[in-house]
Amino acid sequence: MKMSRNFRVALVAPVLAFAMVAFAEAQEKDPLPSWNAGDTKQTILDFVARATDETGPNYVAPADRIAVFDNDGTLWTEHPMYTQLAFALDRVKALAPQHPEWKTTEPFKSVLAGDMKGLAKSGEKGVAQLVMATHTGMSTAEFETIVADWFKTAKHPRFDRPYTELAYQPMLEVLDYFRDNEFKTYIVSGGGIEFMRVITEDVYGIPPEQVVGSSVKTKFEIIDGKPQLTRLAEVAFDDDKDGKPVGINAFIGKRPVAAFGNSDGDRQMLEWTAAGDAATLMMLVHHDDGTREYAYGPAGGLPDSPFGHMSQSTLDEADASDWTVISMKNDWSAIFPEAAK
Amino acid sequence: MKMSRNFRVALVAPVLAFAMVAFAEAQEKDPLPSWNAGDTKQTILDFVARATDETGPNYVAPADRIAVFDNDGTLWTEHPMYTQLAFALDRVKALAPQHPEWKTTEPFKSVLAGDMKGLAKSGEKGVAQLVMATHTGMSTAEFETIVADWFKTAKHPRFDRPYTELAYQPMLEVLDYFRDNEFKTYIVSGGGIEFMRVITEDVYGIPPEQVVGSSVKTKFEIIDGKPQLTRLAEVAFDDDKDGKPVGINAFIGKRPVAAFGNSDGDRQMLEWTAAGDAATLMMLVHHDDGTREYAYGPAGGLPDSPFGHMSQSTLDEADASDWTVISMKNDWSAIFPEAAK
Repeated sequence: MKMSRNFRVALVAPVLAFAMVAFAEAQEKDPLPSWNAGDTKQTILDFVARATDETGPNYVAPADRIAVFDNDGTLWTEHPMYTQLAFALDRVKALAPQHPEWKTTEPFKSVLAGDMKGLAKSGEKGVAQLVMATHTGMSTAEFETIVADWFKTAKHPRFDRPYTELAYQPMLEVLDYFRDNEFKTYIVSGGGIEFMRVITEDVYGIPPEQVVGSSVKTKFEIIDGKPQLTRLAEVAFDDDKDGKPVGINAFIGKRPVAAFGNSDGDRQMLEWTAAGDAATLMMLVHHDDGTREYAYGPAGGLPDSPFGHMSQSTLDEADASDWTVISMKNDWSAIFPEAAK
Repeated sequence: MKMSRNFRVALVAPVLAFAMVAFAEAQEKDPLPSWNAGDTKQTILDFVARATDETGPNYVAPADRIAVFDNDGTLWTEHPMYTQLAFALDRVKALAPQHPEWKTTEPFKSVLAGDMKGLAKSGEKGVAQLVMATHTGMSTAEFETIVADWFKTAKHPRFDRPYTELAYQPMLEVLDYFRDNEFKTYIVSGGGIEFMRVITEDVYGIPPEQVVGSSVKTKFEIIDGKPQLTRLAEVAFDDDKDGKPVGINAFIGKRPVAAFGNSDGDRQMLEWTAAGDAATLMMLVHHDDGTREYAYGPAGGLPDSPFGHMSQSTLDEADASDWTVISMKNDWSAIFPEAAK
């Protein structure tokens, strides 16, 4: 088809005009509006620029743009306790009528009496007992329904909002910004994989297949002619600390180029990411904003916390390496999304 | 911007012309050229049409278009033995100088003597010993290199071609056809996950994060200041039979709508898929073509096989359910891709 010059101009002109407008908008629009200007924000922007610069020495092909995010304390609030623990406590109360023996048996007795110090005394073993008693013995489909129903009504005790509205706005922007630049965003959390998957798509835009977490064993059974997977009271995988690189390797099969965490549980994930050859970004969220969220240690002499504990040695490693510590207080202009109208 | 009618026609005409050509091409082009016309081929075409018809009752949203494929015997040849077993035997020979004790210890002794009957006598336990001795004790990065190097030179004993050229051409077309229709294609195999991931992207267009398989435990270690994952001689997950729905749930977190297999090891995966609410497709490859590939049972009185064993009861279940058995002999006009020039 031979085209006249006018015809060609007519074809090209509107395309060009559109492209110019889009370019100008991209120049103006800040991809991280809830991040205060400064070194921390610039570190993220620079990393994405380097990773996506095809002509540069640190270019990362789209297939290798893997970014991993811890969940509790990195993407959403983990105080006064992990959201999943709040779920477990509520489930103990809901199931108590079927378990009269819980009234006199720890750690259930403390939970039913609202005695958090008593629960703390039962330690990790006690928490594991609570989780097994409330998270297993049903099919995966039933568990999904129980979790979904809980999220519909449960509210955070301080902020009086659904837990699903307590994701950090600045981190939601990072997730979007990364995906806009062809990164694949994964959650890699010590939390329960099937607990998180119920809400990660809605809250973070992360589909089930991009969630790596801790799990119990499941058993394939055919009951009344219908196949189901039954959740067993046995740990299959502990996706914390040393387990995070193991989980990343098992589920993703590629080394991430960006990793975000906030506690000792994320240290090995950041080490594993930092050891890659490409452009890398390692960040730790530091909870130093007791006014807008919570303040816990160790930097600046903040109190220690059983949820999201970060030891001085992890902070020292961040200092010694090129890991960036994010100050919630100084780097974030907003903490949570605006409340839904 | 007000546009004259001519201007608008000038804009729209070439777009329309292009769309019409594309439509005509789509009408003409057979997405499954290596499948002979018939019920089996039509079953696949009908399923994709139903799953992608937004106005129909069986529509599946793109996010839920999960298709799972067994590997050995479904996507590539598994005779005269699993490719991974051929790798293990070659590794025993390569490592023998460092293991003088193997000359007198089964199952290594039989392998080194080329005595396959002796190896068969050592059974599954013997094969497990071979796998552990050849697949563990090194880092994941070292293992990847060893596997990649092996694939570069190893050839299939009968077809005299690299194993990576022995994927089934009709199945490669199904993978492409599914992906063209926004399905996400996964391998779900009893084979080793880290063995397969070395070649699945090149051979099948399936990236590492879409490969589910059996695995050994790995351990995060820092050696000479460098983090590594060391492969341990302990099974982490057995992705076969009952393990397939378990693996699908753990890795993908969604129920597939299409499942392809060829043996008893795939039965539970097909049952799990069939129990979904949406449009579903369950298919079993039957190896009934001894001339172009291999012929093994049980249909038509073909001989039994230790690799890809399918029992009569699996075939009976396929008959009783709406699973489709693919006859390699009758349904496939080609078995392998044409040899690379």
